[in-house]
Amino acid sequence: MISFDHKVKVYYRDIDQMGIVYHSRYLEYFEESRTELLKSIGISVTKIEKAGIMLPVISSHCEYFKGACFEQELKVTSAISILPKAKLDIDYSIFCAKSSILYVKGYTTHAFVNKYNKPVRVPKMIIDLLDKEGLM
Amino acid sequence: MISFDHKVKVYYRDIDQMGIVYHSRYLEYFEESRTELLKSIGISVTKIEKAGIMLPVISSHCEYFKGACFEQELKVTSAISILPKAKLDIDYSIFCAKSSILYVKGYTTHAFVNKYNKPVRVPKMIIDLLDKEGLM
Amino acid sequence: MISFDHKVKVYYRDIDQMGIVYHSRYLEYFEESRTELLKSIGISVTKIEKAGIMLPVISSHCEYFKGACFEQELKVTSAISILPKAKLDIDYSIFCAKSSILYVKGYTTHAFVNKYNKPVRVPKMIIDLLDKEGLM
Amino acid sequence: MISFDHKVKVYYRDIDQMGIVYHSRYLEYFEESRTELLKSIGISVTKIEKAGIMLPVISSHCEYFKGACFEQELKVTSAISILPKAKLDIDYSIFCAKSSILYVKGYTTHAFVNKYNKPVRVPKMIIDLLDKEGLM
Repeated sequence: MISFDHKVKVYYRDIDQMGIVYHSRYLEYFEESRTELLKSIGISVTKIEKAGIMLPVISSHCEYFKGACFEQELKVTSAISILPKAKLDIDYSIFCAKSSILYVKGYTTHAFVNKYNKPVRVPKMIIDLLDKEGLM
Repeated sequence: MISFDHKVKVYYRDIDQMGIVYHSRYLEYFEESRTELLKSIGISVTKIEKAGIMLPVISSHCEYFKGACFEQELKVTSAISILPKAKLDIDYSIFCAKSSILYVKGYTTHAFVNKYNKPVRVPKMIIDLLDKEGLM
Repeated sequence: MISFDHKVKVYYRDIDQMGIVYHSRYLEYFEESRTELLKSIGISVTKIEKAGIMLPVISSHCEYFKGACFEQELKVTSAISILPKAKLDIDYSIFCAKSSILYVKGYTTHAFVNKYNKPVRVPKMIIDLLDKEGLM
Repeated sequence: MISFDHKVKVYYRDIDQMGIVYHSRYLEYFEESRTELLKSIGISVTKIEKAGIMLPVISSHCEYFKGACFEQELKVTSAISILPKAKLDIDYSIFCAKSSILYVKGYTTHAFVNKYNKPVRVPKMIIDLLDKEGLM
């Protein structure tokens, strides 16, 4: 399993009138963490896109246990457990950075498509980098 | 089953550099449709909140089949099928308004909590209104 | 002067913990209204972009007089007063749809650029359509 | 003058179909930087709000010189130059973190209001902290 811990801080723009992070914002925190996870093993989303491959989200799931508050610091852990065949699965857990209490968990699934939105094979470069990290 | 069709239009702010709606935005379209569904049967989220009850999202799920584009018109159908015991389940389907092709489907689950974030019974007024619509 | 009235409704995603619309969201309401204003006189932003011309915002200004609330309906009036030479100026006023009280006013200025982000002349088609509406 | 440099990184959620940050997002970057500026001199927005004082934005202005891209790192400098009488003025400049090229500049003005949205005096604690930093 490859995993990465990414810190985010909650700002006013994220908070709704219940005084907690609006639920869809956690998907944005997932994206931040995923981008940094891939970068940490040498995969730049910018470079993949320049090579004509995109990774659209094809499913997302979130369980919200506790609502994070303004100025709270969160740890967003993302993890890849399986070498992708056609699709890439990424799991996320969001914790209060201070108390380590779990606030949110979820996953996203990504396809690999070309510029014409046609599914393509997982690029060999990505497989090689994930393989090097011990994924099977 | 109670259902409601809500129209949304995609604007520039919703579109990412793949030229399609950024995935978390569909959860916002779900929210619009859900608010209008509840309003259509006499349930105002504003009034519920003024009575001290909130309906935070406790889980969300989305399947993305096709990406909507700038200036596209979408129909966001939301539906309640079961009289809530402790939690309220709402299902969504998003279609191209013109072609009726399915773009996204998903669901959200909501708790009923008081100001101190403690779970409370589903307010009788809500049960009555849903019951009147034939839900069981 | 060309002007257009566009209705928007405030949803939960727009509201911050002061219980009012988060200030940057009004710029998104401006964008909705601007898109519809242009469309009303035959200018489709999608078509302009397909022709290789983009209209990035180069300045924006907002005065916030009153904060709009959840489920409130707003009227977003946008207006063009001067035939653009190199830049397009658009003015906005946001009113409570019910009371007509002014909540926000502001403006945006737009450049005309090509795919390489180089300034270009205002497309003749746009000048002609604005001219037809009586702008000078 | 009191100033603070805050780093932000651009993610996919921020980027529009021109491949640059959607213009209203810079106001969110301003907010991040402002929150950290105030925190750096001992002013917690959370604590001010708990004391019943809010600082709504009453005007905002932005000049956009260059569009930031996905995965770009930005430095958002915020500065307070004048001891607030009734209103707090904050200036911002956003630079490419690498090249120090200026991308965006702007300002926000904030009122001080109580829970009933009535203007109040600038809290003495804030005046004292700004005064200690040498503001006049």
